[in-house]
Amino acid sequence: MNLKQLVKKEVSALRAYQAKEISCSVKLDANESPYGFRAALRAAAAIQTNRYPDPEAKKLRAVLARDLGVRPQNILQGNGSDEIIYHLIATFGGPVLYPVPTFSMYGIISQVLGEKKVAVPLDRDFDLDQGKMLKALRKNRPRIVFLSTPNNPTGNCFSSDRILKIVESSPGIVVVDEAYQPFASDKGFLPLLKDYKNLVIMRTLSKIGLAAIRFGFLVADEEIIHEVNKVRLPFNVNALSQAVAVEVLKDRKALRTVIRTIAAERDLLMRAMEGISTITTFPSEANFILFRVADPDRIHTELLRRGILIRNVADAVEGCLRVTVGTPRENRKFLHALRSCMKESS
Amino acid sequence: MNLKQLVKKEVSALRAYQAKEISCSVKLDANESPYGFRAALRAAAAIQTNRYPDPEAKKLRAVLARDLGVRPQNILQGNGSDEIIYHLIATFGGPVLYPVPTFSMYGIISQVLGEKKVAVPLDRDFDLDQGKMLKALRKNRPRIVFLSTPNNPTGNCFSSDRILKIVESSPGIVVVDEAYQPFASDKGFLPLLKDYKNLVIMRTLSKIGLAAIRFGFLVADEEIIHEVNKVRLPFNVNALSQAVAVEVLKDRKALRTVIRTIAAERDLLMRAMEGISTITTFPSEANFILFRVADPDRIHTELLRRGILIRNVADAVEGCLRVTVGTPRENRKFLHALRSCMKESS
Repeated sequence: MNLKQLVKKEVSALRAYQAKEISCSVKLDANESPYGFRAALRAAAAIQTNRYPDPEAKKLRAVLARDLGVRPQNILQGNGSDEIIYHLIATFGGPVLYPVPTFSMYGIISQVLGEKKVAVPLDRDFDLDQGKMLKALRKNRPRIVFLSTPNNPTGNCFSSDRILKIVESSPGIVVVDEAYQPFASDKGFLPLLKDYKNLVIMRTLSKIGLAAIRFGFLVADEEIIHEVNKVRLPFNVNALSQAVAVEVLKDRKALRTVIRTIAAERDLLMRAMEGISTITTFPSEANFILFRVADPDRIHTELLRRGILIRNVADAVEGCLRVTVGTPRENRKFLHALRSCMKESS
Repeated sequence: MNLKQLVKKEVSALRAYQAKEISCSVKLDANESPYGFRAALRAAAAIQTNRYPDPEAKKLRAVLARDLGVRPQNILQGNGSDEIIYHLIATFGGPVLYPVPTFSMYGIISQVLGEKKVAVPLDRDFDLDQGKMLKALRKNRPRIVFLSTPNNPTGNCFSSDRILKIVESSPGIVVVDEAYQPFASDKGFLPLLKDYKNLVIMRTLSKIGLAAIRFGFLVADEEIIHEVNKVRLPFNVNALSQAVAVEVLKDRKALRTVIRTIAAERDLLMRAMEGISTITTFPSEANFILFRVADPDRIHTELLRRGILIRNVADAVEGCLRVTVGTPRENRKFLHALRSCMKESS
């Protein structure tokens, strides 16, 4: 057996996703919420470990459906959004089109599944480049378009009219990935689902305090859900996560308070960062802030030496780092450390 | 958008896996353990819901490695064995070869991923048909062979020498799916891993009391793990499940006791079923028993009317039903109901 020859060449060419744990005292690298829901873990204590989870996640989908004003049949559950992306590409195949820079998993999973991927650069304001996108649609006839809005790692929302133009012009489905939508000022695209059959919304609980449990979901036309459900593994969301998610979603007010707190803290952090003359910040509707410095590698390392871990995204956006909004105390520590690094460099 | 045309044709042709919940008082249909590990759920209460899980599942892989006498680098974690099957087929591609009847997911996932599948009938004793298997290997040159031993739904182990002959003759990897191995009288194929680089072992915690948490894993040569890890989603095993699995695996003695109890109960149940003249039982090394009746559909329905749910596998093995070993009390109830159904039919 020659292993190199046996592995699919597109997989052989991949590197494993780097999600190593780096020790630090302030962790602002992964767009996690700084606030957990420890009390909700009680719900996990009531499950029977020996029984398979509800394959249809009925309770969880019912709570989500009520919250979002859709029917349970419009919701498909995933072991995180990552798995939903897998399932979408397995269902429809490629070409898969997305703007760049954006969430890396659209491209990685397309490659894993051997599907053609088409990356179209954003414009100078990190908005969709309408001309280029429409041209790429005509040329490549993608079966799936992924649009992350607010976009990661840039933080901005794409223009609604440009998104809708793409939805209208696409021969396939358009997945609006609203992972960061809860932190945005607009309402997102859920209200438009009824008008566009090829519009699909992806959401996750990972950014709003439940990254540990891995739950993402799709909201779409019932016929689309029916097809994607065929490639879903029957017990993809475990019983513990289902129970904890239901418990957290029961208390909508607590969840909303957490989200508002993070959005308000983001605005405070942004103002403070704008006061540092040697960095350039970019507008954010998400729970993180992208900023440009003269020497991102050095600043990233210097911050880590001070115990603060943020994300170096310079390979995706020239000269840029990405910091997740933490607690007020974490943000102050970050600001203090950042100012001190920047002084040293000036 | 024409949805029917947009969905890949091999997916369109699928039906969603039927894992509906049917209400019953005695549930013996899903090869679950009758015994849970409620106390271990305490471990889930200590996690931080807002933080992503350890992407490498280091603690869990370390405990497993110690138990199995391998290194952590030889272990790859999955959101159940189902996901491991997905990842294996995504890594190597097809053709995918397996004997039938066997676990349905090998074929379903091959189809989802658009890979050719080759099903080779077992012989009359439900053992591997060596001639047919070797011929199919030569003809199809499969990149992956799946061998479930003990096999589901037949319950028997395949002959070791036939398995080894297939491992030696295969141009690709051979996955020995040992989901039910803990209940078998032999030691399984782990001791042979060092001798055959293309041998891969799949295990799960689902049959030994932890179906709720969804954890399966692969044990293989480090180079194989390295490649399959590239297609694994980084946070595929959530933090709750990791914590609970570690807690349960810590107490090897308790786990062994549960497994021995189930195996002993299986033997008692088998003897009792052999005493019912109108059914034919088949030998089992697993936590379930396959048996043949004159009218499986009727018996299945009659049992359910009495509150007892077992699995009708007549579409896979002619005239057969499959009953999972339950608690002594559940087994008695099943036997009582079965005898009464059989009397009515004679």
